[in-house]
Amino acid sequence: MAEQPLVGIIMGSASDMPVMEACTAQLEEFGVPYELIIASAHRNPAKVHEWASTAADRGLRVIVAAAGKAAHLGGVVAAYTPLPIIGVPIKTSDLGGMDSLLSMVQMPSGVPVACVAINGAKNAAIYATQILGAQDPAFRQTIETFKAGMAQA
Amino acid sequence: MAEQPLVGIIMGSASDMPVMEACTAQLEEFGVPYELIIASAHRNPAKVHEWASTAADRGLRVIVAAAGKAAHLGGVVAAYTPLPIIGVPIKTSDLGGMDSLLSMVQMPSGVPVACVAINGAKNAAIYATQILGAQDPAFRQTIETFKAGMAQA
Amino acid sequence: MAEQPLVGIIMGSASDMPVMEACTAQLEEFGVPYELIIASAHRNPAKVHEWASTAADRGLRVIVAAAGKAAHLGGVVAAYTPLPIIGVPIKTSDLGGMDSLLSMVQMPSGVPVACVAINGAKNAAIYATQILGAQDPAFRQTIETFKAGMAQA
Amino acid sequence: MAEQPLVGIIMGSASDMPVMEACTAQLEEFGVPYELIIASAHRNPAKVHEWASTAADRGLRVIVAAAGKAAHLGGVVAAYTPLPIIGVPIKTSDLGGMDSLLSMVQMPSGVPVACVAINGAKNAAIYATQILGAQDPAFRQTIETFKAGMAQA
Amino acid sequence: MAEQPLVGIIMGSASDMPVMEACTAQLEEFGVPYELIIASAHRNPAKVHEWASTAADRGLRVIVAAAGKAAHLGGVVAAYTPLPIIGVPIKTSDLGGMDSLLSMVQMPSGVPVACVAINGAKNAAIYATQILGAQDPAFRQTIETFKAGMAQA
Amino acid sequence: MAEQPLVGIIMGSASDMPVMEACTAQLEEFGVPYELIIASAHRNPAKVHEWASTAADRGLRVIVAAAGKAAHLGGVVAAYTPLPIIGVPIKTSDLGGMDSLLSMVQMPSGVPVACVAINGAKNAAIYATQILGAQDPAFRQTIETFKAGMAQA
Amino acid sequence: MAEQPLVGIIMGSASDMPVMEACTAQLEEFGVPYELIIASAHRNPAKVHEWASTAADRGLRVIVAAAGKAAHLGGVVAAYTPLPIIGVPIKTSDLGGMDSLLSMVQMPSGVPVACVAINGAKNAAIYATQILGAQDPAFRQTIETFKAGMAQA
Amino acid sequence: MAEQPLVGIIMGSASDMPVMEACTAQLEEFGVPYELIIASAHRNPAKVHEWASTAADRGLRVIVAAAGKAAHLGGVVAAYTPLPIIGVPIKTSDLGGMDSLLSMVQMPSGVPVACVAINGAKNAAIYATQILGAQDPAFRQTIETFKAGMAQA
Repeated sequence: MAEQPLVGIIMGSASDMPVMEACTAQLEEFGVPYELIIASAHRNPAKVHEWASTAADRGLRVIVAAAGKAAHLGGVVAAYTPLPIIGVPIKTSDLGGMDSLLSMVQMPSGVPVACVAINGAKNAAIYATQILGAQDPAFRQTIETFKAGMAQA
Repeated sequence: MAEQPLVGIIMGSASDMPVMEACTAQLEEFGVPYELIIASAHRNPAKVHEWASTAADRGLRVIVAAAGKAAHLGGVVAAYTPLPIIGVPIKTSDLGGMDSLLSMVQMPSGVPVACVAINGAKNAAIYATQILGAQDPAFRQTIETFKAGMAQA
Repeated sequence: MAEQPLVGIIMGSASDMPVMEACTAQLEEFGVPYELIIASAHRNPAKVHEWASTAADRGLRVIVAAAGKAAHLGGVVAAYTPLPIIGVPIKTSDLGGMDSLLSMVQMPSGVPVACVAINGAKNAAIYATQILGAQDPAFRQTIETFKAGMAQA
Repeated sequence: MAEQPLVGIIMGSASDMPVMEACTAQLEEFGVPYELIIASAHRNPAKVHEWASTAADRGLRVIVAAAGKAAHLGGVVAAYTPLPIIGVPIKTSDLGGMDSLLSMVQMPSGVPVACVAINGAKNAAIYATQILGAQDPAFRQTIETFKAGMAQA
Repeated sequence: MAEQPLVGIIMGSASDMPVMEACTAQLEEFGVPYELIIASAHRNPAKVHEWASTAADRGLRVIVAAAGKAAHLGGVVAAYTPLPIIGVPIKTSDLGGMDSLLSMVQMPSGVPVACVAINGAKNAAIYATQILGAQDPAFRQTIETFKAGMAQA
Repeated sequence: MAEQPLVGIIMGSASDMPVMEACTAQLEEFGVPYELIIASAHRNPAKVHEWASTAADRGLRVIVAAAGKAAHLGGVVAAYTPLPIIGVPIKTSDLGGMDSLLSMVQMPSGVPVACVAINGAKNAAIYATQILGAQDPAFRQTIETFKAGMAQA
Repeated sequence: MAEQPLVGIIMGSASDMPVMEACTAQLEEFGVPYELIIASAHRNPAKVHEWASTAADRGLRVIVAAAGKAAHLGGVVAAYTPLPIIGVPIKTSDLGGMDSLLSMVQMPSGVPVACVAINGAKNAAIYATQILGAQDPAFRQTIETFKAGMAQA
Repeated sequence: MAEQPLVGIIMGSASDMPVMEACTAQLEEFGVPYELIIASAHRNPAKVHEWASTAADRGLRVIVAAAGKAAHLGGVVAAYTPLPIIGVPIKTSDLGGMDSLLSMVQMPSGVPVACVAINGAKNAAIYATQILGAQDPAFRQTIETFKAGMAQA
């Protein structure tokens, strides 16, 4: 991946990777360069801080944050970057992901995290590309082609 | 508002307007031009269809959709446009907005709506501006100034 | 099925078919002609629009709409037809179908979708036949015979 | 109301009447003749039994049942009539109506009750008229006119 | 079982039997005579009506009613008998039994059903025996011996 | 109240008294003698222990326990007496009483508490009288008269 | 407050102060010196980081963190200090505080936050004093005196 | 374990042991001496009373209480000891542990139980050690080393 990554993917635990592979697969299908890091907001706060606060300057344009349970990762990253954060609440074995969802989506005033569905990893990739396409005609075309394909499927 | 609107705000009912004024006020504070329409996905489907399917060509770059109860508006708009949709689930008098939230955030694969908190109208404005700032340095600066202001408040 | 279909069944995804077979089986047992289509309100909006807005003129009298997660299908169809819509919320792997149920049943004023239970495919068939029986003595007799059979089982 | 009632409205308690006035008002606006009874499935079971088991023979074609908390009324009526039952779950002061909704919508196999939204009294009237319109062109026209009116409002 | 049954057990479906065997086993261990019937409040209303309205005169002193989903059985039986009803909400595959619980426990004023835990079949047997022991020293002794045994286990 | 109390009412806080007055009023209407105590399982464990473990010997035949939030009172009393316990979950200002309900009804195997509805104080009185009526014809007659009165109301 | 503070109270917003006054009042009654800061994990991350990472060295022994909605504050503080964190989930106007509770209590493995009840500010003060009393006889005596007082009240 | 136990672990049922082994394993890794008892607040109240009321005098400094369903164990122990109680709500097969969580965390004013996550046995061990470390430099160092290890993992 020699290209400049545009999407930064961060997840709280390596156990989130099987879910998030639907995100990386979709970004690759779209030809959207990304970087990926596994770092917990609670166990590796310095690593998350460093990664988030330099994300914009490194050239990232949008961030996908996936976490489960008391899923603070999206909010913690949002605190350190002006980039838009897409939250992916990870399904949990006890509460089905309702805990992850509320922990991500109910962000207080001033620092939004916008969430997709529980385990919505593929949709996070699509949404990240839509954000890129908001001002970049090539990525908008990618989305339009994708939508046309779905309509025909 | 002579400027080209960049954000399109759509809400399902005029009764959502008091909540959504926090969105328009924040966009105005940020100097982000917007257009606003009240149209129900269920009562005015043709109007929503027309508005959504021409949104990108009219120059909009991001859409904020607010609705309550079985809140389909975000998903219906998403079906007709490649633009990113920010969902604002409106609080309901019986279930507190849990119905609005799940109806918006749990979008199936292929057509994301990214949600902010229940009644998170101000955060929707901030997130829309973050999306604009993903590729436009002026809007990114707007967000950075806003975040610096919060840190000092 | 040479007869004029009276019930139209629409579902958002082919993955809903195993659940919905309990609906088609019951309609067949009752001798109620139906047509069936798989089309997502989000991925194939034009197809859903076309199908829904011509449903009444094609001779359908009642529609069964099955969908899961942010289950907008019933509401989207309801927007385009005067026919009564029976919603079948599909069980989801994370929230058990509570998301599907609220997304269907909590329809705003003016455009009802009447829901049966989560995965209530068989009951949707019975209810569709009850609607037909509201004015057609033959279908009412079908229901009465069915109810008598249950009471004896 | 000299005309033959077509819709039977039953509610579990006189305290449900303020909510249900939106149902009777809409039926009156549509010119749909109805009868109304207040009878609890638990406190007046004989009265409910008598009313439900004679409903079809009295000429009713559809029933609207409204109840709150452990809302059994719809199911109890459904046990005694082949007519379609529209359930209106009444909002409760402690659980917001989630108890009423689940008690109505989760009907077991064989005996459906189709629910509209919590406190969805107006939508119950519209749905009852849609059921009448399934085979009666005049009532279908009523719904089409109503929908056209909403689209213009 | 030549003895006069004191506890009547009713369940809505034969599929509840595996759960309810913990109830019959405990009653047998306690030497409490019981009778058992499978009858749905919705599919066999006449059978339930007949069984419930004669229960007290047949010599039953307490009733255990088990049902799942929109679990009306306890309330329907309670409408027809002065005997105390113990509700056993059956676990459901989609909502875990929250629907069954709320449908049973939230009975409106005047007609109580007292619920034990979801799938609490064994506890229903203990509670039935406690009711018998409220005035019968032999059954009270049964409970005291049982409690002493638990404390030593 | 010179008569031997048959029902013991215990509540966790004086703030539960306004709700529980519907219980005492109904018992008085039924002529059921009762005693009442306010004692928290957490703040006054010794008092609760003493009261519960002597309840049966003092002549009480059934206990009504009302508590809110993490409502342990019913379970704690149940641990110390062979008498049947009727739980009244008190509505809470944040979770509507769902916390009180689950804390009472989900008792583990061996020690049941049978719950009435959230704030179901009147129904607790009726149920206590039904328990007394399980073996005492006078109280059964009280219930039958009460039910006949409701049916006529 | 010349004494060395032992408890650090942090809350996400000045709007939490009315709830948290029950915490400071109880600490003052117990004679437990504390310090208090208002800082959002999302709006003032640097301030929270600085305060949390120096808390132990400044002599604090336990931290009370209060926040509402997606309540990350406890977890963010926990990431930067070895001290025990007591979380106080603040009641929210839409979901009653269920969002705050799950966002705090469901912390992933390795970094606990122990929560008291929604709006449990007074209990947080008691618990902080219990932690101090775990090894300090004077504070243990404070708690014992307090418990004795409750038992007599 | 010749050393004086500092942490007392109590669980309501032997079936909780597989979950709680993550607690004992972590305490052993930290070198924190503990004692463990299985005793139900409902089935063995005298045993729990005896154990809890002597815990402080036996030298314990913090208690971990694990229980499921209507999880009263933490509250019952808290009633009899001035020591801080860490609650571990055990996952349940029907409601996922939401019942256990609310039964533990929503403790009324005056007697806190501080909860970790559902099945958060390992975090309970860490939190117990943090409590010990609040005043004991060796245990604080244990936590700091553990946190440093996580950050590097």
